[in-house]
Amino acid sequence: MFNIKELANEQRVDESFLREKLASREIIIVRNIKRQIKPLLIGTGLPVKVNANIGTSQVDQDIELELEKLKVALDAGADAVMDLSTGGPLDAIRKRIIEASSVAVGTVPVYQAFCESSARGDRNSLLVDEIFNVIEKHAADGVDFITVHCGLTLAALELLRNQKRLCDVVSRGGALLAKWMLENKAENPLYAQYDRLLEICQRYRMTLSLGDGLRPGCLADATDRAQIQELITLGELTRRAWEADVDVMIEGPGHMPLDQIEANIVMQKKLCNNAPFYVLGPLVTDIAPGYDHITAAIGGTLAAYYGADFLCYVTPAEHLCLPTIEDVRTGVITCRIAAHSADIARGLPAARDWDDQMARSRKSLDWDKQRQLAIDPQMFAERYQKSPSHGQDTCSMCGDLCSLKVCI
Amino acid sequence: MFNIKELANEQRVDESFLREKLASREIIIVRNIKRQIKPLLIGTGLPVKVNANIGTSQVDQDIELELEKLKVALDAGADAVMDLSTGGPLDAIRKRIIEASSVAVGTVPVYQAFCESSARGDRNSLLVDEIFNVIEKHAADGVDFITVHCGLTLAALELLRNQKRLCDVVSRGGALLAKWMLENKAENPLYAQYDRLLEICQRYRMTLSLGDGLRPGCLADATDRAQIQELITLGELTRRAWEADVDVMIEGPGHMPLDQIEANIVMQKKLCNNAPFYVLGPLVTDIAPGYDHITAAIGGTLAAYYGADFLCYVTPAEHLCLPTIEDVRTGVITCRIAAHSADIARGLPAARDWDDQMARSRKSLDWDKQRQLAIDPQMFAERYQKSPSHGQDTCSMCGDLCSLKVCI
Repeated sequence: MFNIKELANEQRVDESFLREKLASREIIIVRNIKRQIKPLLIGTGLPVKVNANIGTSQVDQDIELELEKLKVALDAGADAVMDLSTGGPLDAIRKRIIEASSVAVGTVPVYQAFCESSARGDRNSLLVDEIFNVIEKHAADGVDFITVHCGLTLAALELLRNQKRLCDVVSRGGALLAKWMLENKAENPLYAQYDRLLEICQRYRMTLSLGDGLRPGCLADATDRAQIQELITLGELTRRAWEADVDVMIEGPGHMPLDQIEANIVMQKKLCNNAPFYVLGPLVTDIAPGYDHITAAIGGTLAAYYGADFLCYVTPAEHLCLPTIEDVRTGVITCRIAAHSADIARGLPAARDWDDQMARSRKSLDWDKQRQLAIDPQMFAERYQKSPSHGQDTCSMCGDLCSLKVCI
Repeated sequence: MFNIKELANEQRVDESFLREKLASREIIIVRNIKRQIKPLLIGTGLPVKVNANIGTSQVDQDIELELEKLKVALDAGADAVMDLSTGGPLDAIRKRIIEASSVAVGTVPVYQAFCESSARGDRNSLLVDEIFNVIEKHAADGVDFITVHCGLTLAALELLRNQKRLCDVVSRGGALLAKWMLENKAENPLYAQYDRLLEICQRYRMTLSLGDGLRPGCLADATDRAQIQELITLGELTRRAWEADVDVMIEGPGHMPLDQIEANIVMQKKLCNNAPFYVLGPLVTDIAPGYDHITAAIGGTLAAYYGADFLCYVTPAEHLCLPTIEDVRTGVITCRIAAHSADIARGLPAARDWDDQMARSRKSLDWDKQRQLAIDPQMFAERYQKSPSHGQDTCSMCGDLCSLKVCI
């Protein structure tokens, strides 16, 4: 189905290495059996990949705007997108996003299940079959990976309650499930009927992204018993997925002080047998709404350096509102900066070539080459053209005091 | 001269700890004897401080604009500013900035010395006395700290030449000095006549910021023999400064892959007997012009976590043009995010209180409190007010699917 030799070349790794890691599922190829897109490779020893979340909300249901965000995310270099829509005709939106996306598409099916039961009157009247019917529908549409919070168990919720968190549950899917579980006094169906989920995934070659429903939503809640309990469960569920011939990745926090990041990565890799790690952030401080693409880039770079494989972007809109098109662009570029910086630090073959080319074009004051090499050539052009020295060989910072003109 | 007990309270450290570290010069109080400003404390165990560079250039000489940048930097929370002016009436600009600044002001006197010799016809005709005359003038004006590239020696330049760097010297002051040294076949006067410099500093209680003239200007040049040779010299010059009763801080790189940051901090602290470390960046990738406030925040957070004491901001204009007022604001806020994130990770007393307050106001959906607590309340207000859900209790991201409404 896949040309492994070609994929190895693209990822700049040895073919034998790739085959070995695919066999152990430390590297996964994300692509639904129904799709023809470029396969998304995630895992050990590969360049870190970047995901962009898009999708409508209950207060903002403009499909065309979300398709425009998709285009912007792809142009900015996103390796995957997730459709997190919760408003409007969800089936139609998903189909259009899948159709328009040249990269892997992920979803969180419980959103739709809860939205539909809510439309019937009460979100907590959701029937277990509804969840699995939605999952099957997403798989049949060609969704490449789904986030499912299978590790959120009644036992973990009990730990969370005893822990007395500041922010309880901040995962949207996790909170919906937790409320349902508590009101219905029932175990999480995604955990209780996990084999049913695996069967669907196996049939469609759909990757499981095992969600962190109990991820910390603030620094104070990071690395607590509830979070780690869920991670232990995800390790066990990883083993069962592999036995059922299903690839998984594990989702990770969240909000976390910088000094806890290494421990979290080590723990995830160990508890989940080196399954690929997909992180949101981590955001290293809680006090910077409007700048959380930056707090996430700080944590994300370090997480990827220690071994996280897939970074979910965070936009400047986080904690404030649904992102705009410009936020999507900023989010993708910033996340790619984090991923690339980690690739360099991990010594990935040829990762630094790009930087060395930029250094050479700086030394030779070749501004056009610098623009071409910039991760965001559009931003470069806008700023450089505004600068008073545009058209001369130096910039408006130093003028003819430019240090680069001095050759030793 | 200083109320140590009060200063200890402000910095949230024990008075005895502060006295001990002041005695060993691991903590310094930056304030010229002529100034009445709030003293700037930098060093081991204290909250990390943030500097903003402002100043005219040869192509942009609007004094009023630079004074506006000063105001914006102070409002955004900068702990210090440096006047790096190289265009217009330099003495007048410096005096006005010192007068208008409620925080410590630093300068790089060699800029003025070279600008003035250049105005006479040839920058390389600079006389040694001119440098020291400018330094004395800055000191007498009340400059609180000066960057002087005393460790840039002929021997270090020889190492740099043999190393074959991609970007040679990128420090502006360093490049000017290097060119002068090579053309005049003479040792760096700031090194050769270091005692003369110390005498001026001692008389005015002016802090020496020992500059890194050979800091790497790209990842490829990081941690090379020239850079480390200069650092060794700075260690030796630190000892001599201390013997002359002069406080110093050491300036550090620059551009550097993430995996080299810890080693650079350990090395600086060891070679310079734990003198405070003042870093520019480090920028962890070279490919992101327009986003270098972010590449610097990634490196800066990690550097501060490992022990850097003072961060120089980098703005989105870096490598492109002189920063605008908005760039100054973004630069200061981003740098403060890095400093605060490091303070938390280093476990500084009460650093995380701010974050915990934000977490509580998020959980209670108290948007007004969130705005007040945000590091940039103005940015928060602008974004939140644009959001369609403004005025309701949830935001436009999740609407009534808001996870924070679920209490476990």
